[in-house]
Amino acid sequence: MTAIETFIARIQPLVGNRISTNATVRQHHAHGEGWQSPDPAAQPDVVVFARTTEEVAAIVSACHDLYLPVIPFGGGTSLEGQLTATKGGVSLDLSQMNAIPEIRPQDLSCRVQAGVTRQQLNGLLRSDGLFFAVDPGGEATLGGMCATRASGTGAVRYGTMRENVLGLTAVMADGKIIQTGGNVRKSATGYDLTGLLIGSEGTLGIITEIQARLHPLPETILGATCQFSTLADAVDTATSIIQAGLPIGRLELLDDVQMDACIRYSSLEGYRPLPTLFFELHASPASVTEQADLLREITEYHNGLSFRASASPEERTRLWKARHDAFWACMAYRQGHKGMTTDAVVPISAMTDMITLAKQDIEESGLVAPIVGHVGDGNFHTVILIPPEPDGWARAQALDHKIIQRALDLGGSISGEHGIGIAKQMFMHNQHGNDAIMVMHAIKRALDPRNILNPGMLLPAAVSP
Amino acid sequence: MTAIETFIARIQPLVGNRISTNATVRQHHAHGEGWQSPDPAAQPDVVVFARTTEEVAAIVSACHDLYLPVIPFGGGTSLEGQLTATKGGVSLDLSQMNAIPEIRPQDLSCRVQAGVTRQQLNGLLRSDGLFFAVDPGGEATLGGMCATRASGTGAVRYGTMRENVLGLTAVMADGKIIQTGGNVRKSATGYDLTGLLIGSEGTLGIITEIQARLHPLPETILGATCQFSTLADAVDTATSIIQAGLPIGRLELLDDVQMDACIRYSSLEGYRPLPTLFFELHASPASVTEQADLLREITEYHNGLSFRASASPEERTRLWKARHDAFWACMAYRQGHKGMTTDAVVPISAMTDMITLAKQDIEESGLVAPIVGHVGDGNFHTVILIPPEPDGWARAQALDHKIIQRALDLGGSISGEHGIGIAKQMFMHNQHGNDAIMVMHAIKRALDPRNILNPGMLLPAAVSP
Repeated sequence: MTAIETFIARIQPLVGNRISTNATVRQHHAHGEGWQSPDPAAQPDVVVFARTTEEVAAIVSACHDLYLPVIPFGGGTSLEGQLTATKGGVSLDLSQMNAIPEIRPQDLSCRVQAGVTRQQLNGLLRSDGLFFAVDPGGEATLGGMCATRASGTGAVRYGTMRENVLGLTAVMADGKIIQTGGNVRKSATGYDLTGLLIGSEGTLGIITEIQARLHPLPETILGATCQFSTLADAVDTATSIIQAGLPIGRLELLDDVQMDACIRYSSLEGYRPLPTLFFELHASPASVTEQADLLREITEYHNGLSFRASASPEERTRLWKARHDAFWACMAYRQGHKGMTTDAVVPISAMTDMITLAKQDIEESGLVAPIVGHVGDGNFHTVILIPPEPDGWARAQALDHKIIQRALDLGGSISGEHGIGIAKQMFMHNQHGNDAIMVMHAIKRALDPRNILNPGMLLPAAVSP
Repeated sequence: MTAIETFIARIQPLVGNRISTNATVRQHHAHGEGWQSPDPAAQPDVVVFARTTEEVAAIVSACHDLYLPVIPFGGGTSLEGQLTATKGGVSLDLSQMNAIPEIRPQDLSCRVQAGVTRQQLNGLLRSDGLFFAVDPGGEATLGGMCATRASGTGAVRYGTMRENVLGLTAVMADGKIIQTGGNVRKSATGYDLTGLLIGSEGTLGIITEIQARLHPLPETILGATCQFSTLADAVDTATSIIQAGLPIGRLELLDDVQMDACIRYSSLEGYRPLPTLFFELHASPASVTEQADLLREITEYHNGLSFRASASPEERTRLWKARHDAFWACMAYRQGHKGMTTDAVVPISAMTDMITLAKQDIEESGLVAPIVGHVGDGNFHTVILIPPEPDGWARAQALDHKIIQRALDLGGSISGEHGIGIAKQMFMHNQHGNDAIMVMHAIKRALDPRNILNPGMLLPAAVSP
C-alpha cells in the first residue's frame, strides 16, 4: 500500500464519506483565488473534510506517522498560492467546521470553529449588538484569516487578525491539541503562541477554533466620499486623517481607473472616474457630526472636489458594496483578462510617493491595473489585468514585482494582508534579512521536524548562515 | 582561567570600565522590585553596561562561546524575579542604551534604544503632540516593558506592549542581530517574531531597539472619579463601561483599603475610604462632554455616590499621581511591612465575582492587602502587606496563590502584565496545559540550544509528554 492508501484506510472509518480522491475535488483544493502553480500536478492526493478538532488531530497524527503533507483548506480564497500542494499529500478541508459554540456578549468575545465565515458570524452577532471587525471581503473563513493574518477595510480602526484574536485551539504537527491565549483581554504568561500561529499559513499548526474579540456595533455609522482631481491630493488627505488621530472607521482609496471600473460595474451614478476616497465614521451621533466636520475640512484643505456624506444605510451599503466588488469590477473591465493582485504596505509618510511611483510603473508597463487601497494602513493593491496573450502573465508579474520592490525601497513590507504563500518567497530575504529567516526556519524545524505542515509554503529556502 | 575570567578578558577591551564584579553592583543586579530569591547566591558573577546593539552582540556571542548565562537588565523594576541569576553568569545592563535615534511624527512611530524610559520618551514627544501610550508606572525601560509584555493604566484604550510595538532589533543566542517588523502599521510576511520576543522575558533574545507605535496626544483630557458604597457596584460600573463600548482612556479601581492608604499618603481631601473608580476620558471637546454624560449615567445606575469630573490638569495630575503612588501608599500604610504584588486577570464577566472572592480571601487571611485594578482589562493587583513576622512571607504567599488560583478557576490568567519570572512558574501548566508548555520548550530549545538566555526563567520544568 502507498502511504496515501494507508492514510485512507486509517481515516475512512473515522470520517465515512467525507474523504475523496475525486479529480474535480482535488483540483478544487489545489488553489485559492489568486496565484496558481504553473505545475498542474501540484494537487493534493486526497481531500478530507473534518468536523471536529479531534478529527483534525487524528488526521494530522496519521499524516505525521506516514510523513504525508497536510494542507489546511478553509474558504479557498487565498491569493498567494497558499493552497498549492507542492508535494501532494492531504488537503484538510475545514469548511464544515462551522459551528459557533459560544458567544459571550459581556466579554465581547466568542468562540468559533475555523470554518466559520465572517458573514455567518456577523449575522449571528447582530442581535447582540456586536460584530467581528476584520473584513477582508470575500467568503473567507476565520481559520484562513488567522493563517494569513488577514485584515481589510476595518483594520484602520479595529486592527488585523493579530489584534482581534484572543486565543486559538490548534493541532500541532504531532497531532497534539493545544489551547493558546484565552478569554482574557490581555495576558503575560509565556510565549505568544496565538501570535505565532497567526500568519503562519498552516506551516506551524492547524487552527481549529478561534476565540475572537468582538466590538459593539457603532451607535451611528456615517458613510462619505470625496473625489479629487489628483491622486496625490487623495493620498495626502488619507495620511492627514491618520496623522490627525481621527478615529475613522474605514478609509479606502480607489484610483481613477478603479473608479471607472466601479462606476460601470456597480452603476455609481453621480461619480466621475477620478481618484476617490471612501470613508466610514463609527461613533455616537454627536461625535459622528464632529468627525464629519473635521473630515470635510481635511478634504477641502487637500482640494477635494465633492465631499458627500450620507447617514442613509441604503446609500452606504450601495457604496461599500461597490468597494467590495472592486475586484469583480476589474474582472469585468477588460474582457478575457485575468487578475493578479499586488499587496504591499509602506509607512504612512511614504504613501504618496509609493502610489505616485506605482502609477508611473503601471503606465510604463502598458497594462491596465486599477489601484485600490486601505490607505489608512499604508496598504494598497493593484489589480493587474493580465492580457490573454502569451507574455501576458510574465508582463503582469514583472509589474507586480516592480511595485513590491518599490515598497521595499520605501521601507515598506511585501505583504499587508495576503501573506507570502509561494508567490512572494523570493522577497523574504530582502524583507527580513537572512538571520531572521534562519530564526523562522529554526522555529519551523522545532515545531514540525518532519515538515508535513503545508510544506514549501511561506519560508524561502534556507541560506546557510 | 574560569569562564567568567575569560569573558572579562574578552569583553573588557570593548567596554572599558563599563564592566564590574563589585559586590554591591552585582547585588543590585540580582533582583527587581518584587519577588526575591531566598537564595542569596543567585547573583550574576559580572555586570556589563552596553551602549550599542553591536556591543550586546559581542557580549552575547562571548557568552555563547563560553556557555555563560546572560541576563538582560533594564530599569530593574520587574516584579516576578525575572532578574534572578539562577545560575550566575553575566548581567547585561542596557540602561545606558538610552538614545532615541528616530522620531517619525508623520508615521506616528519612533525608534528607541532598549534603555529608554517611558518618561524620557514622552518628555521628548510632547513637542510633536504625540505620546507612547503604555504606562506601567515606575521607571521601567521600553526594553524591559517589551520583555514582560507590560501594560498599565492606558491599556484599556491603547493596548499593551503587544499592540504598541511595530518592530524590534534583537540579539539572538548565537550573537546574531535580527530586525523584526518595521515601520509599517501591519504586515503579513512570515512568523511574528516581534510578538514572539514580546513577553519572552529575555529567554529567546535580547531586545536592543524598539520601533514603537505612537498616538496623537488627546485634544481634551477629562479626569473623573466616583466613589461607591460597595465594591460590587464599583466593579459593575467598570464592566458596564467596557460593555457599552465607551472608549475610555483610563479606568482604575481602588478598593476601600487602598483608598484609605492613598488618602493618607497623597492627602486626597474630600475622599472617603470607599471603593473608588478613577476615570480619564481622551477625546475631542464635544466627545468628551458626551462621554462624561454617559459615564455619569452609568455610575448613577450602579449607585455611584459622588461622580466628580474635572478638566483641570492640576486636579487630574494630583489624582493620577495618587493612583501611581498607590504602591508607595501601601508601603507607608503599615510600618515595617514589605509588599507582595498579586497580578491576575479574568474575563470581564467574571470581574465582580473575582474581586468579591479576593476580598473574602484577604479577610480570611487576616492580612492587609489593598486592591487596585486596571478593571477595564479584567486585570487587578492586590498589594499584600507582609507582616514582619517569621511566617509573614509564607502567609502572604499563601494568599497570593489562593487569589491566582481563583483567577484560573474563573477562566482567567495568572498574569496580566508582570509576567512569570520565577515566581509563577508553578502555575504555568495549569494555565496552558502540558502540550502547550512543550511547544514553548521546543521554541526555547530551537532558539537557545545552549540555554544561556536568562536560564531558569518563565518556563517551568518540562514534563515529558
